Amino acid sequence: MAILIDGKQLAKELNEQTKQAVLALQQEGVTPGLAVVIVGEDPASQIYVRSKRKKAEQLGIHSIVRELPATISEAELIGVVEQFNADPSIHGILVQSPLPKHIAEPKVVRAILPTKDVDGFHPLNVGKLYANTNLDYPVACTPKGIMTMLEKYHIEVAGKEAVVVGRSNIVGRPMAALLNNADATVTLTHRFTQNLSDFTRRADILVVATGVTHLIKKTDVKPGATVIDVGMDRDAEGKLTGDVDFDQVQEVAGAITPVPGGVGPMTIATLMQQTVELAKWSDSRGK
Amino acid sequence: MAILIDGKQLAKELNEQTKQAVLALQQEGVTPGLAVVIVGEDPASQIYVRSKRKKAEQLGIHSIVRELPATISEAELIGVVEQFNADPSIHGILVQSPLPKHIAEPKVVRAILPTKDVDGFHPLNVGKLYANTNLDYPVACTPKGIMTMLEKYHIEVAGKEAVVVGRSNIVGRPMAALLNNADATVTLTHRFTQNLSDFTRRADILVVATGVTHLIKKTDVKPGATVIDVGMDRDAEGKLTGDVDFDQVQEVAGAITPVPGGVGPMTIATLMQQTVELAKWSDSRGK
Repeated sequence: MAILIDGKQLAKELNEQTKQAVLALQQEGVTPGLAVVIVGEDPASQIYVRSKRKKAEQLGIHSIVRELPATISEAELIGVVEQFNADPSIHGILVQSPLPKHIAEPKVVRAILPTKDVDGFHPLNVGKLYANTNLDYPVACTPKGIMTMLEKYHIEVAGKEAVVVGRSNIVGRPMAALLNNADATVTLTHRFTQNLSDFTRRADILVVATGVTHLIKKTDVKPGATVIDVGMDRDAEGKLTGDVDFDQVQEVAGAITPVPGGVGPMTIATLMQQTVELAKWSDSRGK
Repeated sequence: MAILIDGKQLAKELNEQTKQAVLALQQEGVTPGLAVVIVGEDPASQIYVRSKRKKAEQLGIHSIVRELPATISEAELIGVVEQFNADPSIHGILVQSPLPKHIAEPKVVRAILPTKDVDGFHPLNVGKLYANTNLDYPVACTPKGIMTMLEKYHIEVAGKEAVVVGRSNIVGRPMAALLNNADATVTLTHRFTQNLSDFTRRADILVVATGVTHLIKKTDVKPGATVIDVGMDRDAEGKLTGDVDFDQVQEVAGAITPVPGGVGPMTIATLMQQTVELAKWSDSRGK
């Protein structure tokens, strides 16, 4: 039976570290600040935003939630982002996805000051990640949180074969880049990949982020592999489940994340960690 | 026997197209301009720079070569770059690598205006490539030229398995990104990859950019594969050769690039193509 990677417990530990880091910054006169912008009334987005605000407050991070009507224009939304760009009390800015169809999301993302891009989605930060620069820059929170999980569970990455299923800009692509930068040999698979299980069965580390419920079965996994499930799907009964068929895959995997209680809690904990890092990297301490 | 991919002939055709594009732009009152900056007296760099200037002139591209002493400071070099950033007659700026050790090359690259970054090395352009944005942006010339080769020889990329050997920011990483964006399933291998030939033997498209003479042998290649050799190595007799052992690999490959006469000529032709594209994308036509 696989080792269970306890994301809930890891997130708790990471949040505790973040809380201490906030206290240390406050002694230098800086309170890390997070601005979350939400457009429209998407119920899932509202839940996410609420939990981000709550977590920020628990950790001593100054948090602003700006709720905007679905009818707002792209230019007005960018104007709001620019206000936060100019606000020295704000170190991280996040525009909650999805946006209404009349707004070009990439354009809004590019309007965020790269040094305040707490989601790590700005192309300048994506480029720094892909080029593996040695500068400080923010990285997409879900894959960054997964790297923390691998590290905390002492799962070797360098020289290992890693396969990422799904190539979104939120998870799959930055995940592949982080694993490559950590010296894994990485294959990025996607909807055009033929014979997907030929790839997944080779993986020492398998990261699945497709939104396809129980896509990965026992026969798709190499015995002893580490399996990371980024899925947040609903099964036929409406219960939260993942892209990996946990019950059968845990029989062959070496280590596995559950859903819920795996990647999910680490994403939000990493968002908080990164807000504090952006505050540290900023010049607002007068250094 | 493999089909020989004739980079020399393709480059000739591409240069002809570029020449026509220059003429068309000139009729709108714009002459594409390329600035090449060279620091110090590296003989190989001087050859490269000379051939870039010559090719630019042949195609009607306005070209400036700025030769600077090896003793120049980083700040002064960045000052030169900034002059070209501000010069409306220049659409592409290239700082020839390598730079003297006292200068941080990535810092100089980041000083180039992203819209004039004809080498495609600026992190903003790398990020646009990796995120597969639908905007116009420059891409590293060697991998971009390889994509043109694959296209001209009608080699299918979508759904195919591609393996890239070597993960430099000049070739390997942008190559992997381009192949992924073209819907191949891509594995990026490097010095920490274990059992490299297990990977190379899976490839429908194999791109090798390591600088290791004749690294790839017949037994490393899947029968019928397309093999692209980016190597520019010298063999024991000082003759130019590649990372692929051409004589034996051509017996199993489906298509293969020679060295010389393969990737090399396409890189410089792509540089010219991209200079003209940058001129087109710029606002200097008053649009």
